[in-house]
Amino acid sequence: MTPTPSITNVAVVGTGVIGRSWIQVFARAGCRTRVFDQDAAQLDRARAWLVEDLDLAVADGFTTAGEAKALAARVTWHRAPGDAVSDAGWVQESGPEQLDRKQSIYAALDPVAPPETILGSSTSTLDMTEIARGLAGAGRCIVAHPVNPPHIVPAVEILGGAQTAPRVVERTIEFMRSLGQTPVVLKKYVFGFALNRMQAALVREAVSLVESGVADVDAVDACIRDGLGLRWALMGPFGVGHTNADGGIREYYHKYGSAYVGLCQALGGPVPDWNPGMVDRIATGTEAMAGPPSKVPKILKWRDRLVRRIRALKTQDPHP
Amino acid sequence: MTPTPSITNVAVVGTGVIGRSWIQVFARAGCRTRVFDQDAAQLDRARAWLVEDLDLAVADGFTTAGEAKALAARVTWHRAPGDAVSDAGWVQESGPEQLDRKQSIYAALDPVAPPETILGSSTSTLDMTEIARGLAGAGRCIVAHPVNPPHIVPAVEILGGAQTAPRVVERTIEFMRSLGQTPVVLKKYVFGFALNRMQAALVREAVSLVESGVADVDAVDACIRDGLGLRWALMGPFGVGHTNADGGIREYYHKYGSAYVGLCQALGGPVPDWNPGMVDRIATGTEAMAGPPSKVPKILKWRDRLVRRIRALKTQDPHP
Repeated sequence: MTPTPSITNVAVVGTGVIGRSWIQVFARAGCRTRVFDQDAAQLDRARAWLVEDLDLAVADGFTTAGEAKALAARVTWHRAPGDAVSDAGWVQESGPEQLDRKQSIYAALDPVAPPETILGSSTSTLDMTEIARGLAGAGRCIVAHPVNPPHIVPAVEILGGAQTAPRVVERTIEFMRSLGQTPVVLKKYVFGFALNRMQAALVREAVSLVESGVADVDAVDACIRDGLGLRWALMGPFGVGHTNADGGIREYYHKYGSAYVGLCQALGGPVPDWNPGMVDRIATGTEAMAGPPSKVPKILKWRDRLVRRIRALKTQDPHP
Repeated sequence: MTPTPSITNVAVVGTGVIGRSWIQVFARAGCRTRVFDQDAAQLDRARAWLVEDLDLAVADGFTTAGEAKALAARVTWHRAPGDAVSDAGWVQESGPEQLDRKQSIYAALDPVAPPETILGSSTSTLDMTEIARGLAGAGRCIVAHPVNPPHIVPAVEILGGAQTAPRVVERTIEFMRSLGQTPVVLKKYVFGFALNRMQAALVREAVSLVESGVADVDAVDACIRDGLGLRWALMGPFGVGHTNADGGIREYYHKYGSAYVGLCQALGGPVPDWNPGMVDRIATGTEAMAGPPSKVPKILKWRDRLVRRIRALKTQDPHP
């Protein structure tokens, strides 16, 4: 983590799984973090989660008790949006993933946030052009879409709407970097942005392989967790391609381009329809592999612990 | 590594990048490993690589000088296939990826290998039904397709041809497990098997995102290496889906199935054609991101070092 965030006062609006994780991103970096949720029970759950998750991070040695205490001391909890937002330089909105709900939230935030405040959204699918349409402050609205959970996984997709000011994009990139996140700058809107499109492409083929009887759930997952995923934790598809020939990706793609075209053409096929029978088959296979849903909280803790350790390996020994 | 491989005498046929890595898999597990290549220069390169790679593993603390010496002492180098194969219980063929070449190699191996010997192929695309067609020993021929490099990345796709005996499939699974590899059992042939189909699905979308101007090479790769890949090193797409809702993947897919269908339908589009302009754009972006091809050897060493460390993390703290 860099010690000084480029924006020091932050509001977190919405405290579901994504919103509550953002609290840690900001407060860990040193931001004064004001948290708003209109749902008091949800706000209480987020507060309890923060205490529990920080205790765990201390127990696992990722932070000290003193740092955790200092982090928590930077967070305050609010039931009125104005209280959270009126002094913020950055607002992170993580409300429901529906255009009309996002529009309402933005319409409520825009008049109460100071003019220079950036209004960032965690939306994973919506176009900021639509969310901010007609707002006086449309120029300061921007998508900042994280991977779940952002306090563990650093990538954040950054994309303005048609009216977003270039300076807002620049300040967002700078801010995310100063928080220790990895800004992924998109150049134009496409449904699912970049990250979830690549995830969906993989999931689609994974589902097809199970549905067509090529492999079972555990075999498909083993290809990733004991195969491709070990390299993808270090390099994306182009970085991996660069290591596949002495002449780098240029030689590799020249040599194997036609093989890739053939393989890509062989994929295609009908989009799986997620019908109840299909969902049941995959869920049954997944539960046999990974355990019942009651085990998920334990798996999540393990995931977070190991992702932190993988990131530490990469920090200590970065890409040459 | 388990201490006792279920087959103790092994022949490695073909010593390119995949074949030479297999030498370490077998000899590390304790197999007497006889290596054959008809190309003397290639054989010499593989021998030099083994020395260099073992020295590096010692220097990096992954093995001791004594273990490396013992491993190397289990390997012998041969210019006649009979010398390598006549005493082998397992043959790992890693020749050129062309059906007629594989057929010639299998036709040469089948008469000189003892009847109980399994003839495994590293093929990444070919159907064992075709490779072994007409061979007296077709029943003992099987695909064992690794990820590059197999001494670092454990997944191995296992698939027999139409004539492969069920007992050969069982023995192959058992053998791969006894070597410390992860057998991924496929149930029927499909072009690209499972692993490379999923890789191609991701690469296709990655290329599309760059070609359509949504994101540049580095941004696409950052989505994976600082995002999805950190989770995929631990869990495949179904394991990840299982962690996305309190009720596991059953609830998650019921809730978001229609969103996935929409996203999968939005992907589609024409298959990129890997034309020279496209290859140049991606190669230029990749070189700007990861360095010139001259840096690839250094990147490979880093990849291998970090994948070993990630695997060690998972061994010490396995999925709950």
